[in-house]
Amino acid sequence: MDSENKQQLIARLRTIEGHIRGVQRMVAEDVYCMDILKQTRAIQRALHRLDSLILENHLNTCVTTALRSDADAERERVLHELMQVFDATKRK
Amino acid sequence: MDSENKQQLIARLRTIEGHIRGVQRMVAEDVYCMDILKQTRAIQRALHRLDSLILENHLNTCVTTALRSDADAERERVLHELMQVFDATKRK
Amino acid sequence: MDSENKQQLIARLRTIEGHIRGVQRMVAEDVYCMDILKQTRAIQRALHRLDSLILENHLNTCVTTALRSDADAERERVLHELMQVFDATKRK
Amino acid sequence: MDSENKQQLIARLRTIEGHIRGVQRMVAEDVYCMDILKQTRAIQRALHRLDSLILENHLNTCVTTALRSDADAERERVLHELMQVFDATKRK
Repeated sequence: MDSENKQQLIARLRTIEGHIRGVQRMVAEDVYCMDILKQTRAIQRALHRLDSLILENHLNTCVTTALRSDADAERERVLHELMQVFDATKRK
Repeated sequence: MDSENKQQLIARLRTIEGHIRGVQRMVAEDVYCMDILKQTRAIQRALHRLDSLILENHLNTCVTTALRSDADAERERVLHELMQVFDATKRK
Repeated sequence: MDSENKQQLIARLRTIEGHIRGVQRMVAEDVYCMDILKQTRAIQRALHRLDSLILENHLNTCVTTALRSDADAERERVLHELMQVFDATKRK
Repeated sequence: MDSENKQQLIARLRTIEGHIRGVQRMVAEDVYCMDILKQTRAIQRALHRLDSLILENHLNTCVTTALRSDADAERERVLHELMQVFDATKRK
């Protein structure tokens, strides 16, 4: 991953960390539970957008390199891994 | 929410916060991106289990009280909110 | 479920059945696989909207009746069932 | 898609079509709505497994061919399409 992508991911993770701490305060202060639920779901959506960035970077680098190589085992490994990402999305 | 449930939720949120910081380190240390993705998905599952606890508490307290009351508007409000939780689950 | 709701659900299920047959034809006629995938996903969204109608009807009838009754076991059963619906949504 | 894969997909789609007709009968016969919901969710899981087969075939054929070619625009198109599949999975 290049330096710019790394900085962007870390910045997003810090925002998410702050969001989690905000939810801790909401629980401690007895905020209405359905309002807390809205926040935990917003965090899950933010994590999903993060996954999307990670996967996009992965496709443009590792997957492209592997599929263009002549190493059959590596190509299979990378495609198998992509299938796991897809299958896990529903179970997540 | 009773004190025991609150303590449990806050303890889980602190664990999730630590998990998020761990992912920041993984990104900084150039860990393989598919391994990072596994961690961000584990965090999303942990948040979903948290939602489940919040919702269970909500059903046993607010929803039960509202549905047993004679306040039609309040009953409708609570059921409408539950439908939103269900509809949002797929979009989350 | 009242007669109007039943007719509406059956009409939607017939539309979904026709959609499934359309996808069979697409496969047989070698349509581009990503276009087939768009259709199978549209069907899944249609089924989710159907679930939403079924659940809304359930909340307004069975759940409301159970929670207003004095039968503790029945109240617990209905709430437990709702939690299963929520928990299963992510795994579906 | 080779002939064997096509036959397998069509067979699965026919099973799903029969399952949908079974749910129509359940609605007509006033089966308990939470039992109907279990069936519509089983159908959604079956469709997701079908998506998985379609995607696996796509990765092994179109995506591999495109990424190994020197046509930049085609490579970008295929990767962009994969990202849409991933992003849509949560919204589905």
